[in-house]
Amino acid sequence: MADTIENRTYAEIQLGEAASISRTVSEQDIQLFAALTGDINPAHLDHDYAASSMFGGVIAHGMFGGAMFSTVLGTILPGPGTIYLGQTMRFTRPVKPGDRLTATVSCREKYDDKQRVIFDCVCVNQDGKAVIKGEAEVIAPSDKVCRPAATLPSVALGGVPYPVRA
Amino acid sequence: MADTIENRTYAEIQLGEAASISRTVSEQDIQLFAALTGDINPAHLDHDYAASSMFGGVIAHGMFGGAMFSTVLGTILPGPGTIYLGQTMRFTRPVKPGDRLTATVSCREKYDDKQRVIFDCVCVNQDGKAVIKGEAEVIAPSDKVCRPAATLPSVALGGVPYPVRA
Repeated sequence: MADTIENRTYAEIQLGEAASISRTVSEQDIQLFAALTGDINPAHLDHDYAASSMFGGVIAHGMFGGAMFSTVLGTILPGPGTIYLGQTMRFTRPVKPGDRLTATVSCREKYDDKQRVIFDCVCVNQDGKAVIKGEAEVIAPSDKVCRPAATLPSVALGGVPYPVRA
Repeated sequence: MADTIENRTYAEIQLGEAASISRTVSEQDIQLFAALTGDINPAHLDHDYAASSMFGGVIAHGMFGGAMFSTVLGTILPGPGTIYLGQTMRFTRPVKPGDRLTATVSCREKYDDKQRVIFDCVCVNQDGKAVIKGEAEVIAPSDKVCRPAATLPSVALGGVPYPVRA
């Protein structure tokens, strides 16, 4: 974890500039997402049900991968000061526990009038296959921001420590 | 919490049919979302920074409200057996701790060939103002599913019990 969080201003961001984060999805991640959102669809939690589904086992919530785009946009590119205007997502493949995901946002368009930036978004698995594709629209920050990184409370799931990412 | 989770099949879903969930957003929700996703943008966590921002205080992650659509789709309408194909979102207003959100999905279009359904999605605050608008595309289930509702592990945040929603 970095000690500080710094942004890229609208002026600094270049067309084609990209940023990524990667993580391996665990069953703990899926359970915590369900606990946070209330999305207890059995495809994510019920092993007996999921084994007989078209996916052959439990899968992660689509929006869990989608949130990785928001994390890149909010913490790296552009980072602090970004105003999130919109996000589109197409869920193209299932994500299973143990899959290694990499979410990347790439600057495709810049509009000087309101400092709007359009990012292509893709989340791929360990085989390089896209699991989510989409685009994000943000207002990029005018001013440089560099802040101490937030310290988050510890999290426990069923009494077991959960590895907080930040 | 219901004891079972049951779906609405493609055949049962009517044009105009809608379903909603409501929740009041807490600072615990925001911190847990940050811990789960790694999105530690200071707009969500850093009170000193956020007080001087255009929003005048910390705000929830946009994708937190977005996940409410996924929860309605995954647990109520259509519920189990749904294949999530895509989601669009426009973030139209900030969400602050204490805001009461209601996310609603409404069936707008049905396509018999692949049992695709398009839902209008809107998330409003306690004043009835939209904070997110968008649409979802799913494949609705063919078969009726009724399963015991999943029991989730307990969650603690900084040693304090977190009210698991499911």
